[in-house]
Amino acid sequence: MAHTDTTLIVGVLSELSSREHRVALDPSAVDHLVKAGFAVLFEAGCGADASFPDSAYEASGATAASHSDVIAKCNILAVLDFPAPLVADALTSGQVLVGLLDALNNRDAVAKLASRGVTAVALELLPRTLSRAQAMDALSSQSSAAGYRAGIVAASSFGRYLPMMVTASGTAIPAKVIVIGTGVAGLQAIATTKRLGAIVTGYDVRPASHTEVESLGARFLTSSVAAGAGEGGYARAMTTEEQAAQQNELSEALIAFDVIITTAKVPGRMPALLVSEQALATLQPGSVCVDLGASDKGGNVFGSVDGETHTTAGGVIVVGGGNLAADLPASASQMYGRNITSVIDALAPDGVITIDATDEVHSAIVVSHDGLIVSERVRDAMKLAPLPAPDAHITSPKAKAA
Amino acid sequence: MAHTDTTLIVGVLSELSSREHRVALDPSAVDHLVKAGFAVLFEAGCGADASFPDSAYEASGATAASHSDVIAKCNILAVLDFPAPLVADALTSGQVLVGLLDALNNRDAVAKLASRGVTAVALELLPRTLSRAQAMDALSSQSSAAGYRAGIVAASSFGRYLPMMVTASGTAIPAKVIVIGTGVAGLQAIATTKRLGAIVTGYDVRPASHTEVESLGARFLTSSVAAGAGEGGYARAMTTEEQAAQQNELSEALIAFDVIITTAKVPGRMPALLVSEQALATLQPGSVCVDLGASDKGGNVFGSVDGETHTTAGGVIVVGGGNLAADLPASASQMYGRNITSVIDALAPDGVITIDATDEVHSAIVVSHDGLIVSERVRDAMKLAPLPAPDAHITSPKAKAA
Repeated sequence: MAHTDTTLIVGVLSELSSREHRVALDPSAVDHLVKAGFAVLFEAGCGADASFPDSAYEASGATAASHSDVIAKCNILAVLDFPAPLVADALTSGQVLVGLLDALNNRDAVAKLASRGVTAVALELLPRTLSRAQAMDALSSQSSAAGYRAGIVAASSFGRYLPMMVTASGTAIPAKVIVIGTGVAGLQAIATTKRLGAIVTGYDVRPASHTEVESLGARFLTSSVAAGAGEGGYARAMTTEEQAAQQNELSEALIAFDVIITTAKVPGRMPALLVSEQALATLQPGSVCVDLGASDKGGNVFGSVDGETHTTAGGVIVVGGGNLAADLPASASQMYGRNITSVIDALAPDGVITIDATDEVHSAIVVSHDGLIVSERVRDAMKLAPLPAPDAHITSPKAKAA
Repeated sequence: MAHTDTTLIVGVLSELSSREHRVALDPSAVDHLVKAGFAVLFEAGCGADASFPDSAYEASGATAASHSDVIAKCNILAVLDFPAPLVADALTSGQVLVGLLDALNNRDAVAKLASRGVTAVALELLPRTLSRAQAMDALSSQSSAAGYRAGIVAASSFGRYLPMMVTASGTAIPAKVIVIGTGVAGLQAIATTKRLGAIVTGYDVRPASHTEVESLGARFLTSSVAAGAGEGGYARAMTTEEQAAQQNELSEALIAFDVIITTAKVPGRMPALLVSEQALATLQPGSVCVDLGASDKGGNVFGSVDGETHTTAGGVIVVGGGNLAADLPASASQMYGRNITSVIDALAPDGVITIDATDEVHSAIVVSHDGLIVSERVRDAMKLAPLPAPDAHITSPKAKAA
């Protein structure tokens, strides 16, 4: 398709964090966008950590540019997380920023973008249960990668076989694995450790999740403490008393396991402590805890440090795995790229950015637009008065010349 | 059982190499030995890297001692590899050293031991096809651990899913894995990557190994170049021409694979180069080679460095994994401990060391005894004249007082 002055340009950068190996668009996402009539600018080397060479981007029809040129020239910037201030501050009116922006926690930064007329699109606010949103569900795709990776990291950190081994040199019994939290990540962790031959138990406070766990051939364990599902497919946050009772019950159960994988991440909230200091102390030396809930706010496992692995005085290996999807960079980026292109397809169906405030998906994920914070959830978090009900108006920022 | 002055003492040390996490006797091996009437001295901390605390050794009936006391007081010293000179030089007449001594390559060191009257027992010389030797087969048990570990390391180093993933965010095709050399390690690597959902091919120059490979659900690929099995269950060493023809054929096949695991280690010889510089250059960026043949003599993969991981200019990740069993320290040590206790049971059936030169197992693994090099294979390698045929004499070194 020939590019004209109104062709929208999608940009992708190298992620700056040394722990981030993914890239927001892989060459197959570029291919999709170019076929749909977009132009794509990529920062040279952006896919290197995910094994996508520049030549693959070029073969898909993208054009290499400097970091600052990608930012200056693109109409839509695809990112993984909320970008560093140097990137965010360089965005100007009419530009669109798409990614897992964690808008409910990055409120000041989002307000700054809004005030400069940047359209911020936050994928974590997607209505995940909506069927047509599935292909945009970056939280699911990245949780899936993290869950698979948790199984591999557990196997890699454990000094014993996961499967049973019957040999002339003796019999190794299969490892006992418990996965706490059986959402997308938890189910993948169950599937992966199960594939490797471990005896796997899935634990969740939502009793209804037992069918999914059992369909993977794992045992299901739940809490006798009332809890259950909350909004958007997450577990409801428990009261302090409920948490204490649940934790006691869980702690007693944990002593029987060799490997514990925790996945209880509730966006924007302090992660629940599921493996306490006392519970850690009861585990056998050589046991492994992989904590997908690890973050700078703490984790699901006592003492876990995001991005680091340490061994407790009792010989338990604790892996702080808050960003394990980044360690499966090629697959995670491919799926993320597919999520991003699905969002762009939805926001710019005919090569023109078209935000429809009455659309369930648009109204959920578009956080700022035309100088305003337009997301109800973000306005609420910022204690801003609700906007008047949308009048089905369709707005479109001026397309920038390339 | 009460200890007397003639109770044989078995000793175990901390392995000195920073890359060695195994220990020659685990607490369950201690348990076995103590029940059989031996005393066991362990160096404090010897099992720490394998998650066996000192308390577990003590609970099994072993006694902690200093490094030098273990060496000075034991009758039988169990080791993994040939010990460091400080340890070997401290052994004196009548003491027995048992381990994977690599006697055919450590000839000078073995000669020194022999001259001092040390009985050296080399497990790698075991007649592996002999049924009653299976429980002593440390090469097999450690190869098994290395092969499992190779599958885990491959999954861990690969930036994509090994299994097929069909999701709303796109479909990931399963990884294509080839395992070159389908001995014990290769079969375990096949089983592990197959469990993880990869499409696995086993390659071996011994066409007869196809049934084992196919029984694991993997495809079998062999060479059209004549080769086949050699002695002791190893592949026969090829001529230079055969190697070149086989390598060309293999190189052309390798381009189709994402993960290559090479296992062609022939004890005491230069490892065959199976993945050449040219073949490496044809692989996709992000492909992974795990080289179990890596050693200080070279490896099966061009440029592989034992114990290190590097990425080629073409983006291929090369893991030099010559000692991967050490990274599964608890299971590998448990099985090795079982091998060692089986050897000790055979050499000292009634608590007295009794070397029988007419016994198939004794004559194969006992390298030096009573001041002589007694192993035919080692004598041959040292170009020593054969000893007169054994006259079924049974010799026993004087038991050392505790």
